[in-house]
Amino acid sequence: MDAITVIRAKRDGHALTDAQIDWVIDAYTRGDVADEQMSALAMAILLNGMGREEIARWTAAMIASGERMNFAALDRPTADKHSTGGVGDKITLPLAPLVAACGAAVPQLSGRGLGHTGGTLDKLEAIPGWRASLSNERMLAVLAETGAVICAAGDGLAPADRKLYALRDVTGTVEAIPLIASSIMSKKIAEGTDSLVLDVKVGSGAFMKTIDDARELARTMVGLGTDHGVRTTALLTDMSVPLGLTAGNALEVRESVEVLAGGGPADVVELTLALAREMLDAAGLPDADPAKALADGSAMDVWRRMIAAQGGDPDADLPVAREQHVLTVPADGVLTGLDAYAVGLAAWRLGAGRARKEDPVQAGAGVELHARPGDTVRAGDPLLTLHTDTPERFDAAVEALAGDAIRVTADAEPGTGAGPIVLDRIA
Amino acid sequence: MDAITVIRAKRDGHALTDAQIDWVIDAYTRGDVADEQMSALAMAILLNGMGREEIARWTAAMIASGERMNFAALDRPTADKHSTGGVGDKITLPLAPLVAACGAAVPQLSGRGLGHTGGTLDKLEAIPGWRASLSNERMLAVLAETGAVICAAGDGLAPADRKLYALRDVTGTVEAIPLIASSIMSKKIAEGTDSLVLDVKVGSGAFMKTIDDARELARTMVGLGTDHGVRTTALLTDMSVPLGLTAGNALEVRESVEVLAGGGPADVVELTLALAREMLDAAGLPDADPAKALADGSAMDVWRRMIAAQGGDPDADLPVAREQHVLTVPADGVLTGLDAYAVGLAAWRLGAGRARKEDPVQAGAGVELHARPGDTVRAGDPLLTLHTDTPERFDAAVEALAGDAIRVTADAEPGTGAGPIVLDRIA
Repeated sequence: MDAITVIRAKRDGHALTDAQIDWVIDAYTRGDVADEQMSALAMAILLNGMGREEIARWTAAMIASGERMNFAALDRPTADKHSTGGVGDKITLPLAPLVAACGAAVPQLSGRGLGHTGGTLDKLEAIPGWRASLSNERMLAVLAETGAVICAAGDGLAPADRKLYALRDVTGTVEAIPLIASSIMSKKIAEGTDSLVLDVKVGSGAFMKTIDDARELARTMVGLGTDHGVRTTALLTDMSVPLGLTAGNALEVRESVEVLAGGGPADVVELTLALAREMLDAAGLPDADPAKALADGSAMDVWRRMIAAQGGDPDADLPVAREQHVLTVPADGVLTGLDAYAVGLAAWRLGAGRARKEDPVQAGAGVELHARPGDTVRAGDPLLTLHTDTPERFDAAVEALAGDAIRVTADAEPGTGAGPIVLDRIA
Repeated sequence: MDAITVIRAKRDGHALTDAQIDWVIDAYTRGDVADEQMSALAMAILLNGMGREEIARWTAAMIASGERMNFAALDRPTADKHSTGGVGDKITLPLAPLVAACGAAVPQLSGRGLGHTGGTLDKLEAIPGWRASLSNERMLAVLAETGAVICAAGDGLAPADRKLYALRDVTGTVEAIPLIASSIMSKKIAEGTDSLVLDVKVGSGAFMKTIDDARELARTMVGLGTDHGVRTTALLTDMSVPLGLTAGNALEVRESVEVLAGGGPADVVELTLALAREMLDAAGLPDADPAKALADGSAMDVWRRMIAAQGGDPDADLPVAREQHVLTVPADGVLTGLDAYAVGLAAWRLGAGRARKEDPVQAGAGVELHARPGDTVRAGDPLLTLHTDTPERFDAAVEALAGDAIRVTADAEPGTGAGPIVLDRIA
């Protein structure tokens, strides 16, 4: 077996054999297949595609490159969620304790942000004292003790994926559905969850810009989960506008706590409950009532214990950025558009995100919305507040929001521009 | 400008801009674009193609990566030939001195073999004392003195191509017509010849297996040469059977000397004369008579001076392999097929070629033919003689010639299986 034969097979439009896939993933992990060979193969996969059986084998080979976790010792079914990432997507924060409060165990191995979408770990690190890294033993202990844990994935899970993801990131080969699906699912399957709900985002602020691409990705991932014995469903959800009223680390923690306290923006509450019901169904707990767990404070109790178990102080004041700049409504009318990508880019430029994976993020930076699409607005009222510790970045953030990103329409009906959150369900 | 933007543009089917091409070739040569990025781009070019203007710019950028030679000081027009490579293709050896004998200056910067096709320098190195490497000054001196020089291209010509070729070789991206054409033509244009004739091989022993692919490559290269002010034509020639009666380094030198002495196999003489006439026409010497220069010994005189000028002894005995093994004709009939690729593979396995560029080659190894397609043959007569210093390789060479590689047909007419050498001409 050699790398050139495998590359040529995919380049010429053939399906890779099981033996070719097993060999190339193993040899790449060991360093016997060079980065320049794997990137050529990744480009051939991106352009020529992979069949369902190839993707399944590719995923299995990535899982086999590392350790697998096992939650069998827990006395509850495990339920996990993965989002493909969006602007203002803080849903993991209220969702994990909520689902735990309803009886499932929720092991959320999460990541950091890169580019215009934030990362769950970056958000939680805005809480004074909170630590993302746990040993496997400590992770299991927090999960057993509180019902939920949100922490960094260990280096032992799917190391082939870690290496391949870093390569794709610099070679223009991120956008290959077989590679996206196998990357996400190899980690989730290696993690050992019983059930998984996928939140596949669609729209300008998401990775998938069209519903067709999102549906193909969702179907591919649901198929992979099912083939590996993980009960898997997917919701396709809207990411043409930001989720909730905040994009930024501490800003999103604050909004998440409002949801856990029974308040918060309607769209965040709606999506949190929709995903909670999917997770509880998949975990075999269809009678649980997540709306009640939000209302009666039991989800908040899990949140407080979960944060404290990782060194965080749930009562501490959250960081606030040193400077604020308010953008006002340009004219009377209805806010008919607020582009998710533009808001994400503005938050990123303000310091909420990072350009390279070694960059730090600002806990307080981000964008706060004072209206959502569909709302009636008046000229001169506050529309967005920009937060940053580095005010020299305001201009770049304002530039991101120029052009067509903010649309106010004089003669529109109230509600114009507001659409449903959940667009489709794939099971 | 950044590598990912350039890769994505080609990945998504767009034409690269002049600025993108100039930047990416320069940055790759300097090491600012990594091998894994260039290999992803090469695969995207292979699968999505390039337009004529893109190929022209890509070629110009590769030329600009290094030095350009200049033959303006010579008192003769320069004429060069490039073959895309085939089995038994020793044509450069008689052709360069022949065209020089007719009045042109022939600077043949040549390469070594890799895989089943031999390299011109490997063949000449079978001559005791002959040296492939010359300084630019010495190369010009030999050219001025003898009218022809065959030597290794210096490191200063198109260094971007040298780096990119090595990368393509290990990443399954050799077979991209825009990259093949720009690789060949960047070196030939940088070399500074006035005119160029391309011998584009077609068939099992060639890189291009179909006449359509060969024609596309030829048209692309003729267009590139013309755009850069080099008078360029191409012949498409048959490589479904080996050229002449030998494949192997010293064996091919011997056959070349036979041609220069006025003998040699008819197909080698025919192709040598056809290419010589193309070169002399392109060099503005349409009245020269290459057949006469072969017959009157003037081409042989140039050969002897050219070899001696590079340290070689034109009268020395050529190396002979330590062991021979004869394959006989399996049945009475007409030899209707003798597969070029199989013969090339056998010669390679016997030690005439190399698997990696640092491997040595055996001067005496190779395959000698005792009949050509179309000849009437008798069972038990010698058909092929295999030559090697390492007789443990005989079995592997015989295996390469098994199956359908040698076809003897009992009731065929004499001449069946013999076709024309020159298939088409592109100007």
